[in-house]
Amino acid sequence: MDKRPEWFDGGNPENFMSVVRKGVQTDQGSTNPVINNRFQKKDRTKPNIDEFEKGILTGDRSMLARAITLIESNAEHHFSYAQALLQKMLPYTGKAIRIGITGVPGAGKSTFIEAFGTYLCNLGLKVAVLAVDPSSSISGGSILGDKTRMEQLSRNNRAYIRPSPSAGKLGGVHRKTRETMLLCEAYGFDVILVETVGVGQSEVIVREMVDFFMLLVLTGAGDELQGMKKGIMELADAVLVNKADGPNKPLALKTKAEYNRIMHFLQPATKGWKSRASICSALYHEGMKEIWELILAFEETTKESGVFEERRRAQTKEWIYSMIMDQLQYSFFYHQEVKQQLPKFENEVMAGTRTATSAVEELFRIYITK
Amino acid sequence: MDKRPEWFDGGNPENFMSVVRKGVQTDQGSTNPVINNRFQKKDRTKPNIDEFEKGILTGDRSMLARAITLIESNAEHHFSYAQALLQKMLPYTGKAIRIGITGVPGAGKSTFIEAFGTYLCNLGLKVAVLAVDPSSSISGGSILGDKTRMEQLSRNNRAYIRPSPSAGKLGGVHRKTRETMLLCEAYGFDVILVETVGVGQSEVIVREMVDFFMLLVLTGAGDELQGMKKGIMELADAVLVNKADGPNKPLALKTKAEYNRIMHFLQPATKGWKSRASICSALYHEGMKEIWELILAFEETTKESGVFEERRRAQTKEWIYSMIMDQLQYSFFYHQEVKQQLPKFENEVMAGTRTATSAVEELFRIYITK
Repeated sequence: MDKRPEWFDGGNPENFMSVVRKGVQTDQGSTNPVINNRFQKKDRTKPNIDEFEKGILTGDRSMLARAITLIESNAEHHFSYAQALLQKMLPYTGKAIRIGITGVPGAGKSTFIEAFGTYLCNLGLKVAVLAVDPSSSISGGSILGDKTRMEQLSRNNRAYIRPSPSAGKLGGVHRKTRETMLLCEAYGFDVILVETVGVGQSEVIVREMVDFFMLLVLTGAGDELQGMKKGIMELADAVLVNKADGPNKPLALKTKAEYNRIMHFLQPATKGWKSRASICSALYHEGMKEIWELILAFEETTKESGVFEERRRAQTKEWIYSMIMDQLQYSFFYHQEVKQQLPKFENEVMAGTRTATSAVEELFRIYITK
Repeated sequence: MDKRPEWFDGGNPENFMSVVRKGVQTDQGSTNPVINNRFQKKDRTKPNIDEFEKGILTGDRSMLARAITLIESNAEHHFSYAQALLQKMLPYTGKAIRIGITGVPGAGKSTFIEAFGTYLCNLGLKVAVLAVDPSSSISGGSILGDKTRMEQLSRNNRAYIRPSPSAGKLGGVHRKTRETMLLCEAYGFDVILVETVGVGQSEVIVREMVDFFMLLVLTGAGDELQGMKKGIMELADAVLVNKADGPNKPLALKTKAEYNRIMHFLQPATKGWKSRASICSALYHEGMKEIWELILAFEETTKESGVFEERRRAQTKEWIYSMIMDQLQYSFFYHQEVKQQLPKFENEVMAGTRTATSAVEELFRIYITK
């Protein structure tokens, strides 16, 4: 249970601290000619903020895509520009229902999103599909990277599929997905589906940015659950037993009952909402209506009780604090002198020749004074 | 799910950062006359480090108690002295088995510790009982504060009961309990029992400092579990259903089976060890032998597989990193200018007039430059 941030040994990620350090202006005024000009100089073909705003609010798909690219950019000169754009978009955000989907590899997440997304589009809803994949910086985007995985949905003009951004900066995937979600809301999507793989802290991160979180599983709860990460069941507002079709259906029903029994003993993921299991067959597009109705019931219940709004506010607050923690870790663990001295102190503590407290004290002395 | 550290709104705790800032020497050489002299000047009646060392290693109980008082002291001039003493003790630490005990109020934790501790003393073992109670800074020590709760054990000369320290400094209860544990090991205790109440993160903190962790519960698993904190079941190497006596015994057996069924579906707390439920009656001192045998079996299994040593090493590492995180949070959230500006930025984000990212960026600019 090493508490070092996951990125600690992974190269030397850029982050916005460097922007701060180098003193680049980050004036929030989107009409600030300095920023617009600086941006224009670098990317003469890119729209200015007003053009972006107009494009996104009037449903120009290519403008949305380019704005997301801006958000996802790891280039420093894009950072303040993207923030200024987001600032302008804020009043138009928050109206979609945000749904998180996770599940072990092989549970059929993309087949499910294809089926569920298509169902929603057929209801006349506009659906954005995003992904959080912390491994994407290594693999170059392992989920949603291939649009052919959701061929039908990707051709639907009510749907928009955006693969997982690469990390690049610290906490980057997290930030980029959140901000992309906001742009999609401003654009007018009704439903945001956020897919994630069970890597690192990704489920927790997605749970913290969505209203409703579901876990897609296969039949045979016992075996599967034992391999599942701790606490994941307690994040889910619903468990969906997929592949409930053909000869597999009785087993799926048994699995559903099993999950319901376990969830009965766990704390609910959402106050006032009883998490429960359902079955579906993504392959045959079965059970989509029931799931959507479940989500609508969830939305109604939690909006009535105030839990919906309360969670959104808590998420925003938490978002600030988790970014602060990311930055603090970065500033400490990438402090040149600290980085150099840390292994020595750690070894001394591990060897029993120094107390942990004194090691930390020394490291902080270095951090503060050098 | 506010991620601000728990102490954020609670006054202005001192911590060792202030020691660093004020440039107080923290030379680790315990024989350093400067430190000894400084200490002597302030506390002329206190033993010097060599006297402490000799006293603790030769089983002088009052020396142990005074050394723990030194560790627990929130006075800055005690800090480096205590660390130097600990440093000297390090080679003698690590030989006890460390056992954590938690449970909802009313589960009978003190009755259990009284019974279990007495059983161990009767086997000829020396037992130290410590407590982690993060609320103790407010309540003045709500657990183990009253030794009459464990009257029999407190009179046993093989046992030593130490109430929860007050927090005082950042992460203070945590640090003080860990360091007290080390002193107790150097003194020669064979078993360290660490009791905790279910407040804040205390179970996680205790789990991170012990080898074996058990959860004491009452009959009626279903109802009780539903009120239990998320993830707590997955921390436990054993669940003990207490008050399995008289007419309550059949219900206790049923509850035990229930817990075993749930734990079957959860990830084990310790690699290679199947967490299980047992029954006991602390009041009638029943089941103590079985629990001790379970713990011995756990010790044997995990020492053989290397998991025991692996966890201890991981705990030490983690201890360093969690202290670093505490300190980083402290240095940020108590930064005068940051502290002053934070509410304004937070309000702007909550009101939707500023992006979270830009708020954090501005706060870091303040943190770094002012």
